[in-house]
Order: sequence, then C-alpha cells, then structure tokens
Amino acid sequence: MSVHSASAHASFHAIEWRQQSLHLLDQRVLPHEHRVLEYTTAAEVADAIRAMVVRGAPAIGIAAAYGYALDALAGRDLQQAYHVLAESRPTAVNLFWALERMAALNSADAHTLVAEARKIHEEDIAANLAMGEFGASVLPENAVIYTHCNTGALATGGHGTALGIIRSGYAEGKVTQVYAGETRPWLQGARLTAWELMQDQIPVSLVCDGAAAQLFRQGNVDWVIVGADRITANGDVANKIGTYSLAVLAKHHGVKVMVAAPTTTFDLTLASGDDIPIEQRPQEEVTSLFGHPIAPQGCHAINPSFDVTPAGLIDVIATEKGLIMQPDRDSVALLLAR
Amino acid sequence: MSVHSASAHASFHAIEWRQQSLHLLDQRVLPHEHRVLEYTTAAEVADAIRAMVVRGAPAIGIAAAYGYALDALAGRDLQQAYHVLAESRPTAVNLFWALERMAALNSADAHTLVAEARKIHEEDIAANLAMGEFGASVLPENAVIYTHCNTGALATGGHGTALGIIRSGYAEGKVTQVYAGETRPWLQGARLTAWELMQDQIPVSLVCDGAAAQLFRQGNVDWVIVGADRITANGDVANKIGTYSLAVLAKHHGVKVMVAAPTTTFDLTLASGDDIPIEQRPQEEVTSLFGHPIAPQGCHAINPSFDVTPAGLIDVIATEKGLIMQPDRDSVALLLAR
Repeated sequence: MSVHSASAHASFHAIEWRQQSLHLLDQRVLPHEHRVLEYTTAAEVADAIRAMVVRGAPAIGIAAAYGYALDALAGRDLQQAYHVLAESRPTAVNLFWALERMAALNSADAHTLVAEARKIHEEDIAANLAMGEFGASVLPENAVIYTHCNTGALATGGHGTALGIIRSGYAEGKVTQVYAGETRPWLQGARLTAWELMQDQIPVSLVCDGAAAQLFRQGNVDWVIVGADRITANGDVANKIGTYSLAVLAKHHGVKVMVAAPTTTFDLTLASGDDIPIEQRPQEEVTSLFGHPIAPQGCHAINPSFDVTPAGLIDVIATEKGLIMQPDRDSVALLLAR
Repeated sequence: MSVHSASAHASFHAIEWRQQSLHLLDQRVLPHEHRVLEYTTAAEVADAIRAMVVRGAPAIGIAAAYGYALDALAGRDLQQAYHVLAESRPTAVNLFWALERMAALNSADAHTLVAEARKIHEEDIAANLAMGEFGASVLPENAVIYTHCNTGALATGGHGTALGIIRSGYAEGKVTQVYAGETRPWLQGARLTAWELMQDQIPVSLVCDGAAAQLFRQGNVDWVIVGADRITANGDVANKIGTYSLAVLAKHHGVKVMVAAPTTTFDLTLASGDDIPIEQRPQEEVTSLFGHPIAPQGCHAINPSFDVTPAGLIDVIATEKGLIMQPDRDSVALLLAR
C-alpha cells in the first residue's frame, strides 16, 4: 500500500481503478486532509474496509470486487481472496453480493475479473442516478430533508443513494434545505455529508443526533431520507446506528421516512431484521476522538455500528427499479421481480 | 481570577467557598485535567457560568448567589451584580430564583449575603438527598437506568438530582447498571457523568445519543432519569437537548421516564414549555471539539442547548418534597403547596 496526497479542491473519487491498482480516498481523515491510498492485494483492501478507509454499503461492495480482481492480477489464490474480503465487515450485504458475483464467473482471468469489477462500479452509479429520479419524484415542493450518516458519492460508486435523491431533488428545484445529522461516533454526517453538500452548494445545517426530535416537533422537516446496509425480505432495514431512533421520532411527528438503496442491498435469504448480524465496533470509537480521550480512562462503552428499523416505520424504499410504498413482504417481492 | 491545579484523586467539589472567594472546578477540562479557578467578582462568575466552567441548573444558581455575595464583600453595586449574573444564561430558572432570593434580603451586608449563599448551597444538598430517597422508592429491583447529560455532584450543590436518585438507588441495592448518554455536543455524559459514576464504582456504560432507541427496543432499560433546567406550571420540562428525544423513544418502548429537580427549578409564572426561552449556543460547539474541527470550514450548524418535553411524556417528577405522578397543572400545584 502506498500513500499519495490529493488536492482538496480537485473533484474527488472515493474509489478509482488506475494502472492496475485500487485507489481509495481515505475517509478517516476527511474533510481536512485529502489522502489517497493505493492498494494492490485483496488482504490490504480487506484491512481498508475494516478500518473504514472506505465505507458505505455500495462502496464496500465495489472495493471488495476490485480487491478480488487485484489478487487475480497477481495470480494469488482467489478462494483466499474471497474469504479475507468476506470477513472484513459483517453487516452490509453488498459486500457478499459483490464477492458472489465475482466468484460466480468461475474465472481466474484477471482481464475478465477487472472488467467485472468495473461493471459493478458503473452499474452502481447508474442505479444511483435512476434511484435519484424515483426518490425525488415523491418529494413535495420546497422540501426540507433530514439525512443521517453519509450516503453520497463517498459511500457509493458515485452520486449516492439517499444523498443521490437529495442531489436529484435539489437539481429539480424541489429541495430547499438539508439537515445533516452528525452521526456519532464516526461523524460521517459532519465530516462527509456536510462536505459533499457544501461542494455542491446545497444548503446544509449540521445537527447533533439528539437534536433531531425537537426539529421534527417544530415542524421543520418533511422527509427523513437514509440509506441501508441490508434490507430483509419483509422490508426491515439495517442501517447506521441512529436510523431506528430517527424513524420512531419521525413517525411520532408525522415526518415521512424514505430508505434509498440499490436492489443489491436486499437480502431475501433473511426473513426479518432480527436475523441481520450487527457489527459491534471498538469502544475506542466512542471514548476517544482523533486520538483525544473524551471519556475517563477505562470507561466502558457500547458501540453497535448499526440498528434495525422495522418496515412498518418506513413509508418508501427507493431503488433503481422503482419505489416500494409501505414496504412489506409482498411489495418487496413484487419490486424485486421486475 | 486565579488558577490552581488539583489532584485528580482528591474528592472533588464543583463549588467551594473558601477564604472569601469562590472556587470552581473547571468542568470544561474534566475528566483529564483537574483545574480549580478562583473568583472574586460577580462579573467573573457570570463569565464562568456563560463559558460553562460551572453548569447544571442548581449549580448555576448556587454559583450566582456566591457571585452576588462577592460584590457585596468588595462594596460593589449589587444591582449591577444582579444584572450581570442574570444575563449569563437564559434557560435554567434556578439562576433567577437564587438571585431573587439574595436581592430579597434587601441587604448590602456582606456577612448576611455570604451566609445566605451558603444556605442556598446547603439546602440544595439536603434537597438532593431527600429527592434521592423519593426517586429511588419507585425503582424496581435490579433496575437498569439510562441517564442523559450530567446531573450529579458537579451539576448541583452535591449528590445530584437524577444522578442523586441513581446514587441512592444503588446504595439501596436496587440499581444494577447505568447507561450514560454521551450528550453531544458538550459530552457531559462522557466527560462528567461517567467520571462521577466510576468514582463511586457504579457500573456504567457510555452510549452515543443515537444508540438509545435500539437499547430501549432490546428491552435493556427500565427507567430514563434526567434532570431539568425549568419546569412550567403544567409540568412541561426544559432540559438538555436530547431529553425530548429520549422521552418520545421511551414512551414508544414502554420505558418509564422520571425527571428529578428541586422545587427551585419550577417556574409557575410560565403556563407551558412553549414560553421557556431556549438558549442557542455557538455553532463552534458542534463543528469543533477540543479546538479540532470536525466539520468542513464554514459549515453551518444549529446548537439549541435545551429542548422541551411535554408533561404527557413524563411518568414522575421527583422533588425534595415528594413525587409528582403523571404531572399536570393540578398535581404540580398540589406538590408545590406542601
């Protein structure tokens, strides 16, 4: 792995395939430092996924596909590449979907595998653009949106899922204001979403996670729009910790809830959200920030990285194939069969 | 104002009157640094309240009373002392209550005023001990408590309000586990509450504010216990931002909600929570941490320091005079008339 520095003003790419290697924008140090890391093995890419150099369910899937292709290029064992990548993070299903798709080619030909990874990457961008149109179509005029975590170009192949819908809605003149929940502990909202929106000159205000309810109560928000890490057959959604809280609070205040995800995020092998493995991340992500301790030494913390929102709290799931209104087992199956 | 350093292992006093001056433990730098600041004028004390050297509604009232006495000691204009202190922070009513009580003596005699400030301080400790008994009496055996912000010895004259009930409940063997919400943006839960509980060897786990809902859903919490900055005639409660969110989430999951406050926190001149002035604090408290930026340069943020929880979401208000069950205008009036 090698390190390059990038201009803060250049248009950014979270994931780039260049000269037979994978380049990832290091999302741990954004927005104040733009550092691009270069990877040449699947094991290195697995480490990057685990350490959250790259994060966001679709982006993890794309990075894993390229990681698999890297080991093909070097003539390494592809079964091992598969396993090391599959063990990097447990919750986002796009990771396993992308690895399955690469392995299903049943090929060790590097050219074929690199082309497939590129195709996964390009299809994700196309899916986001389609999802953006579908999702924006249900927004009212002068919509005020609350979003959580980062679901933008950094979390995907490009454009974004929830943030893609916000981008499309803004381009259509329908979105006037975005509230970005800061999303503790990793601060994806503050560090990544606010940054992406400011680059696009979309009006954004940062909000501490605990302040969302009062905003909803004041009638200041029309829609909560979030992404997903895994959606089960009945429409339950695993997403960044804090999403379930927002969904309950939105329901209480009559704020609508939209989940944006490509169909690659659905996992029909699981009946409901109770079956989704939830990653527990290190306590230090809660007890310190940028290496600075923010809790007493030795303080215990819980750090579940995701929570599960039951389908009953979700008004719409937007995918690249269209919208699922009032998601349940039937409406999910119907959409995925298209 | 002068600075002293204190041992991290000495038993701490948030507020101490010593040798004709006021000593405050600087809560901005806890738990990693123990710095005691010494004050000799009301204007300095007002600055300390505004900057949150001392915070917590009861503690602010006590500090203001001592600040008023300091100007009496130096023969300064007490009307001006009153005004400079009253303008320090807008939401906690204990500040205005304490200043009214000092001014009502209609005395410029320093000995009389210092004695009154000491009395306010001592009465607050006694109130917390009584409140602790009353509040703990409604807890079940093996109670698991979720608390927010800091309401302990640091936020009061001693023992604490919500944290006082937790302390009393733990001493009675009824409390087995405490979850401390970290309380962004100022991290009172991480920096102050976890520290107080660890000093008392009460089992505590730190939780990001957005993770509370999932804990409630898993059935892991019996009671949410929080403090208050102002309670209106109908039982509505202004408290640290994030409290309203917890109350809505608790109601959704059948978790009980207790508010702990001395009767000095009630403001019967206000009919409902809609009338409470809510302090908006600087954006920088959200966009940076310990001087380290955590959002893009120039990012807009909202930073309301408090929110309002309607009485209908509160099961019990615990005071030093007893408990108010299902608070409303009548039950509040009845308790305060005791």
